[in-house]
Amino acid sequence: MIKRLDQIEGLISGLKPGRIAVAAAHESYVLQSVAAVHAKGYGLPVLIGDKEKILALADEMALDISGMAIIKELDTLRCAEIAASLVGSDEADVLMKGQIQTSDLLKAVLERDRGLRTGRLMSHIGVYEIGHYDKLLFVTDGGINIAPDLRQKVEIIKNALKLTRLFGIDRPKVAALTAVETVNPAMPSTLDAAALSKMAQRGQIPDCEIDGPLAMDNAINRVAAEHKQIISEVAGDADILLAPDIEAGNILVKALIFLGQARSCGIITGAKAPLVVTSRAESSEAKYYSMLLALAMAGLPDEDGKGIRS
Amino acid sequence: MIKRLDQIEGLISGLKPGRIAVAAAHESYVLQSVAAVHAKGYGLPVLIGDKEKILALADEMALDISGMAIIKELDTLRCAEIAASLVGSDEADVLMKGQIQTSDLLKAVLERDRGLRTGRLMSHIGVYEIGHYDKLLFVTDGGINIAPDLRQKVEIIKNALKLTRLFGIDRPKVAALTAVETVNPAMPSTLDAAALSKMAQRGQIPDCEIDGPLAMDNAINRVAAEHKQIISEVAGDADILLAPDIEAGNILVKALIFLGQARSCGIITGAKAPLVVTSRAESSEAKYYSMLLALAMAGLPDEDGKGIRS
Repeated sequence: MIKRLDQIEGLISGLKPGRIAVAAAHESYVLQSVAAVHAKGYGLPVLIGDKEKILALADEMALDISGMAIIKELDTLRCAEIAASLVGSDEADVLMKGQIQTSDLLKAVLERDRGLRTGRLMSHIGVYEIGHYDKLLFVTDGGINIAPDLRQKVEIIKNALKLTRLFGIDRPKVAALTAVETVNPAMPSTLDAAALSKMAQRGQIPDCEIDGPLAMDNAINRVAAEHKQIISEVAGDADILLAPDIEAGNILVKALIFLGQARSCGIITGAKAPLVVTSRAESSEAKYYSMLLALAMAGLPDEDGKGIRS
Repeated sequence: MIKRLDQIEGLISGLKPGRIAVAAAHESYVLQSVAAVHAKGYGLPVLIGDKEKILALADEMALDISGMAIIKELDTLRCAEIAASLVGSDEADVLMKGQIQTSDLLKAVLERDRGLRTGRLMSHIGVYEIGHYDKLLFVTDGGINIAPDLRQKVEIIKNALKLTRLFGIDRPKVAALTAVETVNPAMPSTLDAAALSKMAQRGQIPDCEIDGPLAMDNAINRVAAEHKQIISEVAGDADILLAPDIEAGNILVKALIFLGQARSCGIITGAKAPLVVTSRAESSEAKYYSMLLALAMAGLPDEDGKGIRS
């Protein structure tokens, strides 16, 4: 079982290098991480953006970008549209955010005529390596869906399951997080959690165990779960944490990274191709592994058994 | 400035020992922590519960409880009522939860005729010592208020300010946490955060700096705040984190404790006396410092300048 982020490299060995469309690539941190992925032979970047600035930055940082295609475009929104269109027309396998607001990038992705929409919900999934947890922890969705309803939470879980499948986790354990471990009519998140548990039990959400409501301690700490006498396959041993909403999810993952010293990466799934939308504040390590994750996901067969990549 | 939990001992030095009413004290962990506080001369426990069991447990664990009053009561709910009445009639300064559900204890506290209600909102505040933050972090409210509205958030902040005042923090920095640092009409928590910031600026919430909306990373990490070009007294240097709701608050503090290895303690304020409601899963250290915190709070003058304690 994969327990460390650096083992993600193993997931893409054997795959031919995927094509990465980088929207608004004229940013030093982005160029740096893209160059690292390219140097390892994992990806073929297509840089879309201010060509002069890209060349100047590469020169300044002594980055070898000689093998990368560059599409000159000064308008940031247009960069996103070009990147999305490349993915839509199968000319790129992964879309990466550069010097552009995430919301602007997503707008370009969601435009109907660019061919990235799949009818599925898009959601963010983060992968965390934490010193005091004995396996990787997948957290969703602290990035895209503000207040998902039950139907959307099902989609968010299904998106996460694709990632855990990639990691070779058999029947991942999903904890539907709330503030408590009991169903409380005054807390709608506990009702959703109960419903999700039952849906998994009835086979409506296959290939995983789901339990909830669970508080954070019950979900990831066996002693805490035992104190509460919770009888559950999931409690104390969760692989996937489903946050009740974007605030809880976002605050959780940032606490893990900035106060818990977790190593992390993450992607957005649900579009035709995986999206890498790391922020400036994230480490170059996070950017690097997020790209590898996206490339590995792009190498998976899709729902119809066809490969996403040609 | 107090930066470590063990410095809380300094807050109660010089105070005469406070009286702690322990509701349903027949539980080994509770007895152990109460005995530690008593042995140090900080508190005078009144144990309410199954007297036979209390004596047997003390004997078994070799705890000296000879100086403590014991009120024999086999009914758990009745234990809570007695403890609350002791506080209501100024016969105890602090109320501590023993072997009883928090909701049952709070019910006894909120009964009008017991004299614990103050007209103020009750809220939970936790204090966290985290390896990778250079001061103590106060988080509220992950324990009591499910989905506080703006008015209730003001009360929650005011309750927290009493605690930071006790710690000698001059004009504490309050971060109103959400998932983003921008106002978004689709995310009500960002609107509340903006309103709270303005209320502080206008003097409607005095003696503190408030800024929000802030994402978790912007609130506690200066580099992350700079990346987002946030100009703020609070960003990157928060003392108090106001969670948008109970889920986000509860998940945050449990992640800090169980994955971030934070040392912690906490109390409920807003009633006539501080309440200690630590759970079984919490460490004995957390129980010990929570009691000291409650005793120190009980030693503060109240709103009218009168001491809570006689």
